[in-house]
Amino acid sequence: MYRDILVIGAGVLGLSSALHLKRLNPDRKVLVIDKFGGPGQGNTAKSAGIFLNLFTTEINYLLSDSTIDWFFHLQNELGYNLSLRRCGYLYLLNEARYRRLKAPISKMRKKGIELRTFGKEDLKRMIPDLVTDFGEEETELMGLEPVEAGILGVKCGSVDTDALARSLEAEFLKLGGEVSYRITATRLIIRPERELGVPGEPFVWQDIRVAGAETSKGEILAGTTVVAAGVWSERLLDPIGFDALMRPKKRVIFVFKHSRLRRLRDARGFSEHNILPFTHIPEISVYMKADPAEGSIWLGCADDFGRGYGLEDDPQPEGELYSNNIYHALVRFLPCFENVRPVNMWAGQRAINRYDRIPVVAPAPGMIYVGSATGYGITKCDALGRTVAALDAGEKGVELFGGRRLKAADLGIETRNVGKEVFKV
Amino acid sequence: MYRDILVIGAGVLGLSSALHLKRLNPDRKVLVIDKFGGPGQGNTAKSAGIFLNLFTTEINYLLSDSTIDWFFHLQNELGYNLSLRRCGYLYLLNEARYRRLKAPISKMRKKGIELRTFGKEDLKRMIPDLVTDFGEEETELMGLEPVEAGILGVKCGSVDTDALARSLEAEFLKLGGEVSYRITATRLIIRPERELGVPGEPFVWQDIRVAGAETSKGEILAGTTVVAAGVWSERLLDPIGFDALMRPKKRVIFVFKHSRLRRLRDARGFSEHNILPFTHIPEISVYMKADPAEGSIWLGCADDFGRGYGLEDDPQPEGELYSNNIYHALVRFLPCFENVRPVNMWAGQRAINRYDRIPVVAPAPGMIYVGSATGYGITKCDALGRTVAALDAGEKGVELFGGRRLKAADLGIETRNVGKEVFKV
Repeated sequence: MYRDILVIGAGVLGLSSALHLKRLNPDRKVLVIDKFGGPGQGNTAKSAGIFLNLFTTEINYLLSDSTIDWFFHLQNELGYNLSLRRCGYLYLLNEARYRRLKAPISKMRKKGIELRTFGKEDLKRMIPDLVTDFGEEETELMGLEPVEAGILGVKCGSVDTDALARSLEAEFLKLGGEVSYRITATRLIIRPERELGVPGEPFVWQDIRVAGAETSKGEILAGTTVVAAGVWSERLLDPIGFDALMRPKKRVIFVFKHSRLRRLRDARGFSEHNILPFTHIPEISVYMKADPAEGSIWLGCADDFGRGYGLEDDPQPEGELYSNNIYHALVRFLPCFENVRPVNMWAGQRAINRYDRIPVVAPAPGMIYVGSATGYGITKCDALGRTVAALDAGEKGVELFGGRRLKAADLGIETRNVGKEVFKV
Repeated sequence: MYRDILVIGAGVLGLSSALHLKRLNPDRKVLVIDKFGGPGQGNTAKSAGIFLNLFTTEINYLLSDSTIDWFFHLQNELGYNLSLRRCGYLYLLNEARYRRLKAPISKMRKKGIELRTFGKEDLKRMIPDLVTDFGEEETELMGLEPVEAGILGVKCGSVDTDALARSLEAEFLKLGGEVSYRITATRLIIRPERELGVPGEPFVWQDIRVAGAETSKGEILAGTTVVAAGVWSERLLDPIGFDALMRPKKRVIFVFKHSRLRRLRDARGFSEHNILPFTHIPEISVYMKADPAEGSIWLGCADDFGRGYGLEDDPQPEGELYSNNIYHALVRFLPCFENVRPVNMWAGQRAINRYDRIPVVAPAPGMIYVGSATGYGITKCDALGRTVAALDAGEKGVELFGGRRLKAADLGIETRNVGKEVFKV
C-alpha cells in the first residue's frame, strides 16, 4: 500500500498535522493510522484537558496562544462543542517561588499575556477552604511553606479533549483525508536514497530515508511519514537511531466527588464561570481541575525528579500515591479533603524534553517527528500541526492561526533555536 | 557503609573525577566502585584511543586541549608511559564537505588550533593507495564522492587507554583514594532532605536527594554520589527520573594485519612518526588508526542515523558489517583492502548527546552526573573530572590543567550554555 503521506498516531498532534497537511495538499493521499480504536484514545484521553498560554519564550507563547484562538474558532465559527471554559489557570505559590517568578511574570505581561495576581488576603476570601498559615508541624517537621500569593492566567482553561480529537478528525475527513484505527506501526522502513537492489541494503555508506512503516496490517509505503505517536514514538525512532529528545514519565489523576468539596469547586471571583480555576500547587506537585458538569474535582500529580522514566503501555496509578503520600500534605493546605477518598483514578504518560521543555518538530529524510514536551501538547497542537505541514511543503515560515508566524527550523533539533523557558514553578 | 564521596564507574571519567575530588578533599573518604575487574575495562577499553582538539565551540576546545596537555604531563613529568603519539587526525573530505567546513576551519585556526590542509595532489603523493578519482560506477551507481581535500589536526593522536586508566587510578590511590572492583551499583538511594521516619517516604511533596547506592555487595551511603557509569548510567538515572541527555549506540572496530596494508600504514609526511594519521572518511562513516607496535590498522565504524539506540551489556560486531557493507565502498577509496579480512573485531558503545554533542556535567541534590558525548570522552576526561570536583566544592569556576578556566554551570542541563559545535563532518 502506498500513500503520499502517512501519519502515525491519531492523538491531537497527529490529527492536527494530518489536517494541515491535507489542507495544503488537497490532491495528495493522506492516511492517519492509530493503534487504538478511535481518535485521541492514547494519552490525549488521559490528560487533564487544559489550555494555557503562560510561557516566557516567544515560541511557547506563539504555539499556545494561537492554538487557543484556534480552539475558539473551532467552537464558535466551525460549530464544534469543545466545552471550552476560560476558567483561568491559578498558581498558588509560597513566598520564595513568588519572588523568583516576579521577573518572568513581568516578562509575560510585556508580551501581552493577561495575568492577575492575588495576595494572601484575596485568596483567603476567594478560596475559604485554603489554609494560608502554617504551624511548626507543617513548616519545621514537614518542610512545607504556606501559600503567599496567587497568579492567574486569564486566557487559560479547560477543553474536552475527546471532542477536540473528534473535531480535528472530522475536519480532516471533510477534506478527503483517510483514517484507519486498530493498526499498530511496528517498524519504520528504511531505504537507501539510491537503491542498488542488492542484498544487505541499506549500507552504512548510503544516504538513507524513511520510506513508510511496517504495521500490524502490512507494509505502508509513503513519501512522507509523520511520527506523532506520543510516548510510543521511541519504539519507532530508537531502532533507526533518531533521538527525539523525549522521555516518557507517568502522571496520575484522581477524581473526587464529595459534598465537602463543593465550596472549593465553586470558588467565586476568578472568572465568569465562578468555579475554581485550574489550580496548581507546586509545593506539593499537585494540580486540580473543577468539573462543573460532573460536579467533581480532578487532582493530578505531576511529580518529576524521583519519578522514573520509562515507557508503559498501560500505566496504573499507584494505590497509595494519594492515600499515603499526597494526602498528608494536601490536607494541610485544604483540610476539606480530610477523609475524602477518590471515586476514580487513572494514569497516563507524558513525553518530557528535559533539555528545554519546548516541543520538537524535527525532520529526517522522508520523515517528520512531532512531539510536545512536559504534557503541554494539547495547548499547542494546532500550531505544531501547521509546523509539520510547513516543513513537509519545504516552507521556512509557518503561518499560525490568526496570522502570526514562526520559523519552522527553530523547533528542529540540529537547527534548534528556542531559548529557555524561565517561567518554571 | 558510608563514604564522603562515592564514584560509580572506574572508566576514564570516573577515575579523573575521583582523582580531582580527592585532590581537593584530602581528608574526605573517596571510594570508586566498578562492575568490572579493573580500571577502564568498560567502553574505555573498547574505544579507538584517540585524542583530538578539533572543535569550534570554546567549551569543547578547552575541555580537549587542556586534557591533551594533561596527558603529556602525565607521561613526561609524572612518568607514566601512555604511548602518546601525536600522529595527527586527518579528515578526508569530498568537495561539498570541504566547502562546508571552510568557515569552521578558519574559526578553529583563529582559536589557535593548528591545522594543515592538503589538496588532492598532496594526498595522492602522501597516501599512494588512496584513489582520488571515481568513475561512473562509484559516483552514479553507488553515490560516492571522491576525496578532494584533507584536513589534519596537528595536536591530535593516539593514547593507550588502558595505561591512561591505570595511571589515573595510581595517582588517585597515591592520594589515599580507595577503589573496589566487581561491585555493581544496582540502584541509587533516594532520601528526603528532611526525614520524618514514617513509612512511605520519600513523599512527592518532600525535597529529595541521592544518598548513595545499593550495590551487589550491600548499601553504600555517601555525601556525594558521582554517576560516571558511561552508557550504563541510564540504569541508575532512569528510575530516579534524571535525564542525562545521553543515549547509547554501538560502534564497531575491526583490526587488519596484512602485508598489502603496510604502505598505507606507513604513510609519510603527516607527522614525525611517519605513520598514517588517525584518518576519518566521513563519506563512508569509517575511521582508521595505524598501530605501529602491532603493525596493524584498526578500522572503526561510527554510523549514526540508521544505527539504533539501545543499551547492550555485551555488544557484538555484526558479522557482515565489514564483509558485505563497509567493504564495498572502502575498496573504492583504498583498493589495498581488496580481499583483506579482519583478524580481530569487537564492539563497544558510546553515549550520544544528540542535542549539542557536548559533554554533560550536571548536579542534582546529593549527586553529580558526568558523561561525555559522541565518543569523545577520553580526550576530555581530565577537564571533566576537574569540573566534577569544582561542582562538588561549590565553586563556580573550574581551573583546567595549564590554568585556563571554564564555568562549571555551562556544562549543566538547566544552566546549559555551550553553543553549537559547527565542525561536523
